[in-house]
Amino acid sequence: MADQARTDVNTLGEFGLIEHLTKNFKTRQKTTILGVGDDAAIIDTGGPEQLVVSTDMLVEGIHFDFAYTPLKHLGYKSVSVNVSDICAMNARPQQITVSIAISNRFSVEALDEFYEGVRAACDKYGVDLIGGDTTSSLKGLIISVTAIGRAPAERITRRSTAKVGDIICVTGHLGSAYLGLQLLEREKEVYLANPDMQPEMKEENKELYAAILRPEARTDMVDLFAKNNIIPTAMIDVSDGLASEIFHICKASGVGAILEEGNIPIKQEAQLQALEFNMDPVTVALSGGEDYELLFTIDPKDLEKVRFLPNIYISGEIVAKEDGVKLHTVGGNIHPVRAQGWEHFGE
Amino acid sequence: MADQARTDVNTLGEFGLIEHLTKNFKTRQKTTILGVGDDAAIIDTGGPEQLVVSTDMLVEGIHFDFAYTPLKHLGYKSVSVNVSDICAMNARPQQITVSIAISNRFSVEALDEFYEGVRAACDKYGVDLIGGDTTSSLKGLIISVTAIGRAPAERITRRSTAKVGDIICVTGHLGSAYLGLQLLEREKEVYLANPDMQPEMKEENKELYAAILRPEARTDMVDLFAKNNIIPTAMIDVSDGLASEIFHICKASGVGAILEEGNIPIKQEAQLQALEFNMDPVTVALSGGEDYELLFTIDPKDLEKVRFLPNIYISGEIVAKEDGVKLHTVGGNIHPVRAQGWEHFGE
Repeated sequence: MADQARTDVNTLGEFGLIEHLTKNFKTRQKTTILGVGDDAAIIDTGGPEQLVVSTDMLVEGIHFDFAYTPLKHLGYKSVSVNVSDICAMNARPQQITVSIAISNRFSVEALDEFYEGVRAACDKYGVDLIGGDTTSSLKGLIISVTAIGRAPAERITRRSTAKVGDIICVTGHLGSAYLGLQLLEREKEVYLANPDMQPEMKEENKELYAAILRPEARTDMVDLFAKNNIIPTAMIDVSDGLASEIFHICKASGVGAILEEGNIPIKQEAQLQALEFNMDPVTVALSGGEDYELLFTIDPKDLEKVRFLPNIYISGEIVAKEDGVKLHTVGGNIHPVRAQGWEHFGE
Repeated sequence: MADQARTDVNTLGEFGLIEHLTKNFKTRQKTTILGVGDDAAIIDTGGPEQLVVSTDMLVEGIHFDFAYTPLKHLGYKSVSVNVSDICAMNARPQQITVSIAISNRFSVEALDEFYEGVRAACDKYGVDLIGGDTTSSLKGLIISVTAIGRAPAERITRRSTAKVGDIICVTGHLGSAYLGLQLLEREKEVYLANPDMQPEMKEENKELYAAILRPEARTDMVDLFAKNNIIPTAMIDVSDGLASEIFHICKASGVGAILEEGNIPIKQEAQLQALEFNMDPVTVALSGGEDYELLFTIDPKDLEKVRFLPNIYISGEIVAKEDGVKLHTVGGNIHPVRAQGWEHFGE
């Protein structure tokens, strides 16, 4: 690895790096309907349904910290975040593979905890564990999960198909996971400063902790869409924050967006906690990540169908590309939105 | 992770650990035809072909050493070893996902090298890169690849379906990869002891180096079987050594096996190199790993079809379970075979 030129990976950002590394790959199989660039790839089966495939890696010290992450929750979350990508395609998850690399500080009992969480998530989402790999690592725990789902071709929803005039919707509250993480980090600092101090997990913050430690994928929304005969025009899951995700939809679809500040769903406990941290709750909702809600757009003709569905918040509108991505504040001002998701590179 | 009981993961061995961790998982989707326990899982599509899915993790310091592993070869190998699992199901690979976790010592140029190798393998095997994940690691490079292949249901070959009387075949020479690795390790030692000494990569050992650094998956064999109307009765790829793999087939199929020492294919240069290392060439072929040849069994009625095919070596016979797994030596003796593959745990 004695490089002539040496470009730091951090200079490209996570999405720039992926684009750079995969730009020379062409797909050639007729069965590959969609490759890199969405929440999941789409594969034709020759049968009535198409498959969607997504994969994610979780790395100790980067994505989770054992100072406050129970192994069982981590197992559950490893499945949830991948199932969430399948939901973002409007497909139903059916199979997963789970691979782990572990250092020898992990005992069989610790792994049992982790797999108990995996199993609880499999039970919840109705997915089958069909494979994986188990190997040693030099340091820490690395988890790689691949999820496979399926749906009729006409129901599969990409991020690249939003149209001007479409309504922007969100399936649930945003910012909770980010605030839960800040609370856990604060408690870790307290503990490190004085190991006699027990971390204080306040009952009133229970849902913030759960949001970061044990997020749920919105398989229920995929069912709700099917039951109400709705096909979103575009969809993505909120893993990196609302701002980052709306930018992904806008970039892929060649459109702009205007978000209504007053209609961004934020839990009351998240509002209060943000204020306690001297943060603006809307900024937290826009830029915090890991909520795993679905961000989607619908044709205006479906607005009446969606309006009365539970847990769906109508939060904005797709506009022309030239109009950019903007926030319409409660005070009546219009601000440009910046995409500041949780990029691991370039932080 | 304050465990009451603490069982070291090394006590179970790699395969024992996987069995332990996955034993409580039941499959529930009708589309899951085969879950954990073979080279790949099998998924029904509702169409004329079934999908097979396999996943592998490669960890720096465990599976590869940058002292002698060119990144481009590593990219190629990461694809090959997964495609090999698809071949072991008698299926054709079509899609892969490639995820990497990297520490910040890797430059964009280094990753370009790696992905050039991935691309060369995609071109060779006709597979499409359809997804992946790119993230930071605290230490070293971790690679996770998932491969997806397909085949008509009746052609898919498991490891659990060998029958007494079946003929045992191997698709190519064994032991080369292990000897290539020993050579590279020896040269690393020389270099570490005296950094002025340049590693000596002898031309005559070229194929041994290639076997470990840039192995090929036997997609050609899947084509050869189809063309000659042969369906193996059972198959596995040789990733952990012939002994370990024949034990897998025998355990899964509930049979025994007798291998003919004289018919285990070993390259002449591997024979010579084994002797130079004071190793028995047959032991190296039995216990060395990473050759990525296919080990398969055929119905005796197909023997005449197979006998004249190129690169297929007839190396033994499936016998009753009670007869165990034995080696019939050139000298006429019968020895029990021990399964000593490359288990990462328990070494």
